[in-house]
Amino acid sequence: MNRFFFFLTIIGVPLSLIGSFMHWSPILMFVLNCITIIGLASYMGRATESLAIVTGPSIGGLLNATFGNAVELIIAILSLKAGLLNVVMASITGSILGNLLLVGGLSFFVGGLKYKRQRFSVFEARHNAGLLIFSIVVSFVFPDVFSTRLEDNATHILSIAISIIMILIYLFALFFRLVTHRGVYKGQDDDHNHVEEDEVPEWSGVRAIIVLAVSTLFVALISENLVHTFEPVAKSFGWSELFIGIIIVAIVGNAAEHASAILMAYKNKMGIAVEIAIGSSLQVAMFVAPVLVLVSVFFPTFMPLTFTIPELVAMVLSVVLIISLTTDGDTNWFEGAVLLATYIIMGIGFYLL
Amino acid sequence: MNRFFFFLTIIGVPLSLIGSFMHWSPILMFVLNCITIIGLASYMGRATESLAIVTGPSIGGLLNATFGNAVELIIAILSLKAGLLNVVMASITGSILGNLLLVGGLSFFVGGLKYKRQRFSVFEARHNAGLLIFSIVVSFVFPDVFSTRLEDNATHILSIAISIIMILIYLFALFFRLVTHRGVYKGQDDDHNHVEEDEVPEWSGVRAIIVLAVSTLFVALISENLVHTFEPVAKSFGWSELFIGIIIVAIVGNAAEHASAILMAYKNKMGIAVEIAIGSSLQVAMFVAPVLVLVSVFFPTFMPLTFTIPELVAMVLSVVLIISLTTDGDTNWFEGAVLLATYIIMGIGFYLL
Amino acid sequence: MNRFFFFLTIIGVPLSLIGSFMHWSPILMFVLNCITIIGLASYMGRATESLAIVTGPSIGGLLNATFGNAVELIIAILSLKAGLLNVVMASITGSILGNLLLVGGLSFFVGGLKYKRQRFSVFEARHNAGLLIFSIVVSFVFPDVFSTRLEDNATHILSIAISIIMILIYLFALFFRLVTHRGVYKGQDDDHNHVEEDEVPEWSGVRAIIVLAVSTLFVALISENLVHTFEPVAKSFGWSELFIGIIIVAIVGNAAEHASAILMAYKNKMGIAVEIAIGSSLQVAMFVAPVLVLVSVFFPTFMPLTFTIPELVAMVLSVVLIISLTTDGDTNWFEGAVLLATYIIMGIGFYLL
Repeated sequence: MNRFFFFLTIIGVPLSLIGSFMHWSPILMFVLNCITIIGLASYMGRATESLAIVTGPSIGGLLNATFGNAVELIIAILSLKAGLLNVVMASITGSILGNLLLVGGLSFFVGGLKYKRQRFSVFEARHNAGLLIFSIVVSFVFPDVFSTRLEDNATHILSIAISIIMILIYLFALFFRLVTHRGVYKGQDDDHNHVEEDEVPEWSGVRAIIVLAVSTLFVALISENLVHTFEPVAKSFGWSELFIGIIIVAIVGNAAEHASAILMAYKNKMGIAVEIAIGSSLQVAMFVAPVLVLVSVFFPTFMPLTFTIPELVAMVLSVVLIISLTTDGDTNWFEGAVLLATYIIMGIGFYLL
Repeated sequence: MNRFFFFLTIIGVPLSLIGSFMHWSPILMFVLNCITIIGLASYMGRATESLAIVTGPSIGGLLNATFGNAVELIIAILSLKAGLLNVVMASITGSILGNLLLVGGLSFFVGGLKYKRQRFSVFEARHNAGLLIFSIVVSFVFPDVFSTRLEDNATHILSIAISIIMILIYLFALFFRLVTHRGVYKGQDDDHNHVEEDEVPEWSGVRAIIVLAVSTLFVALISENLVHTFEPVAKSFGWSELFIGIIIVAIVGNAAEHASAILMAYKNKMGIAVEIAIGSSLQVAMFVAPVLVLVSVFFPTFMPLTFTIPELVAMVLSVVLIISLTTDGDTNWFEGAVLLATYIIMGIGFYLL
Repeated sequence: MNRFFFFLTIIGVPLSLIGSFMHWSPILMFVLNCITIIGLASYMGRATESLAIVTGPSIGGLLNATFGNAVELIIAILSLKAGLLNVVMASITGSILGNLLLVGGLSFFVGGLKYKRQRFSVFEARHNAGLLIFSIVVSFVFPDVFSTRLEDNATHILSIAISIIMILIYLFALFFRLVTHRGVYKGQDDDHNHVEEDEVPEWSGVRAIIVLAVSTLFVALISENLVHTFEPVAKSFGWSELFIGIIIVAIVGNAAEHASAILMAYKNKMGIAVEIAIGSSLQVAMFVAPVLVLVSVFFPTFMPLTFTIPELVAMVLSVVLIISLTTDGDTNWFEGAVLLATYIIMGIGFYLL
């Protein structure tokens, strides 16, 4: 697996840079950039994990939470700077849908083919359910409903206020899990997933920082190019910007996470798989999205926290579905199939839009 | 009970046929046809159950699932052929509302008058909750939201795609319950409901097939007549087509099921009662509705999977309510009263519409 | 605490009466009236509780349920008489939001600062969840969706029908809890909250009735004045009527309850705190709101059961959030923070509206 990502990176990075210099065709560059970013993202993930082990659980959790979505954040900020507001909103939607339905669905399905029932902590599931409801159902639906009755200016104030509150709650959630209630809910259920082995970091602290810095730099460089291929690619294939954001950018930005979640499910560590699927969605909703809103204050076009109705409905439906499937702390192949079916339905819907 | 249905049938069938020949008044024919179909439906139900016991649980489950809603499917296809699109959509809605709220409510209420608390498998309840969310909340809401933003052609493609996916998931669900996870979740809770006695079929296989074939034939014949009485009856009573579909057709199409669910609740076999109430709704949502969409491709008027907003809201609210009442695997008279109250509210709403 | 309310009352009542006589400025009178009512409400609450203990649990429960929201009901009826329809609807919304989010949130948060985990009966939580869904999600959403498709007259009939059904279900709920299923679900979970100590009433029956009668009389008098200050105050501060109703009236009408819920949470009697927070919301939704609809039949302007979309969405989101946080029968400071964050978000939204 690591070897595969190594090849993607070692071949992708130089080709991407050469290509951008030589002005290769947008479609070729789009594919090339996507592949390279997938490779680099795996390095960022591994570096973050090593750092997290070195620095201990509290700071490690914070690092994981912040850098876990660094690729998405970078692509989104660069797109925002380029004025591609719709693509950014769509990629947030796509990231959430992709993590909940595609990553979750594949994990449950693939894991379920090997094991009849897979279990994970009911407490984690409920904690996450509450946060999904708060971040997606409350914080995303609310400004959408109010914005149609507010002037633009008031919508902006509301978006900024909600974004600040969401980031605070996100930090509270980390504080809750890593400090005040660390281990409080443990052992309550037989979550053999959470046996914390003495983990050995893959890389030393210094090496991890260097890898993280270099790969982040390259991701930023290549994302810059990637963003500019969106429009010509969309035109060539007849895709909407929405579809590019929701399906393509979301898959590219999360490819490394996708792979590791499914691997964990296959190893019967369903707790970690669920944590990646739902946890990533929460990070995007509670951290990436509000940060983008706040960053956009300094950009020419402000990004209000108002998704289009189809985006909003798709996210809310996905949240309701995943909650109804996960609150029992028990998964099987059929639940995976239902999630994947929903992802396909939504993919078709957004393609037709 | 059986004797009562025997009388309905033996008197109803000849009168219905004579009446249609003699062109009796539409209102008389409407009542006559409804009563006859209720009688015949009970025969179809008994024949299917006998066949299911003879063929064993796997094929039996499939038979039950397919023929359980045969009457509704026949009435719906004939209405569709007659171009009564609204009546068909309304009868799907009514069937789902009727099963969840009326059958469920009466079962909980009547059973609850005799027993303080009635229990059923929590696992079944959660499995069904996931499917209700998938089929009604996701698959019905999604095309409605998208259709206002899509051209008719794209809405049709989306409806067909969703219908195919729903039927696949429906088959997967049968496969999951009858094959891969048969008995996996059993004994987990003290569901004394599910003690499988050695069941003896009422009729032999051959006799059951004959009864099934003959009664299906008559149902088809009489439904053909019934469909043509809708318009004149609606005019006479000042009812809307919506009301006829939602209340009348739904009650007629499900009368036999209603009776047996309540009987089971009264015998404290709440697991079976819930299975009938929620299971029937799921069959209508995941099998009858998508089959009608696919069948309508060959008819002059295509039936997209887009319900009216009142229909959609009523279904979604019912699903949310029944899930909130059943996830604890415990029912009582008060929960039944709440379901019945909701049915009455919705009935009044649709009557006024 | 009681001393504090004593001071509020002893100073507030004469000043309020003098002020109304001397025509002091509306803003001063608004503040004065609000403070006085908070003081009087605490006396009404204590009198009701004493009476409830004297009369025994069944009639006591009924008394508590009826007089628990007497202040709100009085303010609302007087506002309705003055034609302030929007303020009344907004105060219902505000009362529900305030109880669920502010009272619930503060209880969970304050209690959670002292105790790592606080528990309450899972059964109560689920019973309440079902009622919240029935009353707010079903009974409030349904007329809103239908009213846009109905003539005014039909909307009125629907509102009246739903109101009658809600009051019936409310009475059934009392009958269920106090008579048929009293204690049935007890001891099932380790709810040490519900240990019924032999309670001693603060006041004798006669004295309680006198206190209740006198304080109710004064509340009515002062509310009459309060209602007429709404318009000038709204103008002076640039607040909308919606904001006054949702935030100000709701806080004033529920101040005494707020205080006692938080006190109970701090004493680790989370069961009672939750009962106040969710129970009060249910009383407002299932009793106060429908009674107002029925009473308004005799007033010049009829009050249909149709909230504005922002009000409706805010209530539904709050219900979904509180259910997702309470169904596990376990609270902590973080869940409190999430509820408070949601209240702040909604407060900002309604302020901007």
